[in-house]
Amino acid sequence: MTFADHLKEEAASYWEASYRHPFVTGIADGSLPLTNFRYYVLQDSYYLNQFARVQSLGGARSEDFYTTFRMAQHACGTYEAEHKLHEKFTKLLNITDEEKTNFRPSPTAYAYTSHLFRAAYNGHLGNIIAAILPCYWLYYDIGIRFQGARPEEPIYQEWIQTYGTKWFKKLVDEQIVRLNVIAEQTGENERRRMKENFLISSYYELQFWEMAYRLENWNSSIMPEPVSSGNEVDPS
Amino acid sequence: MTFADHLKEEAASYWEASYRHPFVTGIADGSLPLTNFRYYVLQDSYYLNQFARVQSLGGARSEDFYTTFRMAQHACGTYEAEHKLHEKFTKLLNITDEEKTNFRPSPTAYAYTSHLFRAAYNGHLGNIIAAILPCYWLYYDIGIRFQGARPEEPIYQEWIQTYGTKWFKKLVDEQIVRLNVIAEQTGENERRRMKENFLISSYYELQFWEMAYRLENWNSSIMPEPVSSGNEVDPS
Amino acid sequence: MTFADHLKEEAASYWEASYRHPFVTGIADGSLPLTNFRYYVLQDSYYLNQFARVQSLGGARSEDFYTTFRMAQHACGTYEAEHKLHEKFTKLLNITDEEKTNFRPSPTAYAYTSHLFRAAYNGHLGNIIAAILPCYWLYYDIGIRFQGARPEEPIYQEWIQTYGTKWFKKLVDEQIVRLNVIAEQTGENERRRMKENFLISSYYELQFWEMAYRLENWNSSIMPEPVSSGNEVDPS
Amino acid sequence: MTFADHLKEEAASYWEASYRHPFVTGIADGSLPLTNFRYYVLQDSYYLNQFARVQSLGGARSEDFYTTFRMAQHACGTYEAEHKLHEKFTKLLNITDEEKTNFRPSPTAYAYTSHLFRAAYNGHLGNIIAAILPCYWLYYDIGIRFQGARPEEPIYQEWIQTYGTKWFKKLVDEQIVRLNVIAEQTGENERRRMKENFLISSYYELQFWEMAYRLENWNSSIMPEPVSSGNEVDPS
Repeated sequence: MTFADHLKEEAASYWEASYRHPFVTGIADGSLPLTNFRYYVLQDSYYLNQFARVQSLGGARSEDFYTTFRMAQHACGTYEAEHKLHEKFTKLLNITDEEKTNFRPSPTAYAYTSHLFRAAYNGHLGNIIAAILPCYWLYYDIGIRFQGARPEEPIYQEWIQTYGTKWFKKLVDEQIVRLNVIAEQTGENERRRMKENFLISSYYELQFWEMAYRLENWNSSIMPEPVSSGNEVDPS
Repeated sequence: MTFADHLKEEAASYWEASYRHPFVTGIADGSLPLTNFRYYVLQDSYYLNQFARVQSLGGARSEDFYTTFRMAQHACGTYEAEHKLHEKFTKLLNITDEEKTNFRPSPTAYAYTSHLFRAAYNGHLGNIIAAILPCYWLYYDIGIRFQGARPEEPIYQEWIQTYGTKWFKKLVDEQIVRLNVIAEQTGENERRRMKENFLISSYYELQFWEMAYRLENWNSSIMPEPVSSGNEVDPS
Repeated sequence: MTFADHLKEEAASYWEASYRHPFVTGIADGSLPLTNFRYYVLQDSYYLNQFARVQSLGGARSEDFYTTFRMAQHACGTYEAEHKLHEKFTKLLNITDEEKTNFRPSPTAYAYTSHLFRAAYNGHLGNIIAAILPCYWLYYDIGIRFQGARPEEPIYQEWIQTYGTKWFKKLVDEQIVRLNVIAEQTGENERRRMKENFLISSYYELQFWEMAYRLENWNSSIMPEPVSSGNEVDPS
Repeated sequence: MTFADHLKEEAASYWEASYRHPFVTGIADGSLPLTNFRYYVLQDSYYLNQFARVQSLGGARSEDFYTTFRMAQHACGTYEAEHKLHEKFTKLLNITDEEKTNFRPSPTAYAYTSHLFRAAYNGHLGNIIAAILPCYWLYYDIGIRFQGARPEEPIYQEWIQTYGTKWFKKLVDEQIVRLNVIAEQTGENERRRMKENFLISSYYELQFWEMAYRLENWNSSIMPEPVSSGNEVDPS
């Protein structure tokens, strides 16, 4: 079993919970309210921006030129994919410029991307790949699992079909191979930290669906009572 | 109104919710079960370790030698305080070596400290001070507010009396002054980011009580159902 | 006068000295021994690898998604240019794999790239652009100044014609504009640090020609007598 | 042979050249002009400031709390030593406030400290310790070697007696042990990088004497002719 397969197995309960999360199944069967998807699209756009920054940090922390190049290519790919996909959704969902200006990352989107930056700055390339891999791999898995789904909502149809493609599979496989190669060259301590980075990202992937399903905000999501009695304060 | 006072005012709803959080009032009136406090002590010990690392990053990102020195002194102080306080609590609460070895940071302790690292690595000294200040200042405020409290549990008595001291006030004031000086020398954009760092830390301070009150873990805390049906997985 | 033009003016003595440095004029008139150029090609290849890592750090420290994308594109461009140009030179100059394996960065190549990493990690995007700009801009200037030169050596002909192209001009202009925009949005202190980053890189550009002209190494380049009496030690 | 002893042996030619460098022997026999020492004191003060920042980065990148604490203690010690020693020299040498204000780090002081930051940010704690150790260890060695020297100049007497003390030996030994422990827990690749960090710092220690002996500046030190014909430009 490769190191990557081992990590995926260890993270199985998070991944399984993602596959059957009502946000995900609600896209597949078309039952998810567009309000939740709209919220998701905005948070995902923020997420992908930070993700490309962390991919760039991967390029900065690569010790051979080719890997620096490939990580930069992946960062470019993240920008282009976000641009294409979200431009389309922005139109279809009538997301206004005002909404974009007033946008704030949710606690979960902020915490997930903080985790990625922490892994990147405190660690080395192996930690970065381990931390960003669940985002690649889980989305591909979901794309494959639900590729037969035919939700009436064309936006959901579009979303599902993006992640099960061969183009995306190639990128996922490249990072899986990179992780396995690094894991072979490193010691047990480093592998344990890489596993931790992978598991925490898997946890946050699951939280991300939940965040969009609950329309999480900085006030009420986790501890409703004490905060709601005060006046509203957003970290902005 | 100083910049620091302005930030505190903006964060008021989080701070107010902290003052009246059942974890905090439960210490003051002695009603908090020791299980929750024991959980808190272990998470706080982890937190302070990361906190000292971020204080050290503050020293590394200071541009005058005296500030580097003072930030290093604060990092030393964090170690010494943690050492003294937690050694005492470890004994009084019979925290075993096994518990320490098996310890895992909770999602909230991990997310809070990820935020601190993110502020430190992506920002400058002003962002670091803004991000670490709520931990200093809120604890001092709580120490003052509850200094008249006389919980029967001597451990709680001890905890309350630590943070309202003059020794601690001096450290808090030093960081407040540092923040105000930096804020005066910087532009509006930077002040907005410093405010954001402060507000997010204030949010996490509140979450930290909640975490200990609920004995949060990686499985069940936020989204119980989907995860709990799988086998237990800790990010470790 | 734009901020970039001001910086170039301040750095004039270094730039002027570069234009008339015997390494540069020796390429233009064909008088430079190929030994020196061969040494230069290997050091430049190392330099460009580090340069792409610093461009990636620029992407990581950009706060809007488009800039992250463009910096990643530039990092890709550095890889592709190095790959194309140096592959050609490697063949023409018969650079062996053994030479590549035994390669060590010279003191100047190491110090220059250390400066770039320092500017990137301790500063913000403005410092990164200021530090990397002389490499773009000076090479373009040299390409333009010597575009009429017709050295007999085809390798030198090739080298000169690379940097005066429209393709390269577009990249240079993009970074100049980026620098000017950042300079307008920032305070006097920051501009002074950006100027320092630019001047130090200009100094190192000049040193880089000198390094190749003297075939600098870790023993003898700067302080011949005391070191040369010991046995040879390379930092490797 | 411990790892640290192995590194010292590999760096022998640099260390030997330091022991017999005219700047060092000129302090021991009192023949060094005070102009050179005055220049050295100002550059050393800058160096120690950056050194304390890198020690703080070591604290930030330590994974156990005690090491974070000790690295912060060392950073404090650097400040206190610099403060005490240089305050004394400032008086004895009549260094004016104007001189301090107009101070610029020399190319060598800048390059050496850039190397330390690069090792710190791109590497882990082992690279930091390896990069900062020569400064500790070589100064101690020089303190011991020349402890019998009795230069007439009391300032030189003072300087020599600082570094051969038991107080300093304890700090040096602590970092040597730390390096050896890390080296045992890490792989061959990491040890090679640590060795490189140590050798480059050893090279720069030697350059640092040379810099003060030649009163190096940004114009003339390394490549006098081409630059000196332009107007004076300092990277400031």
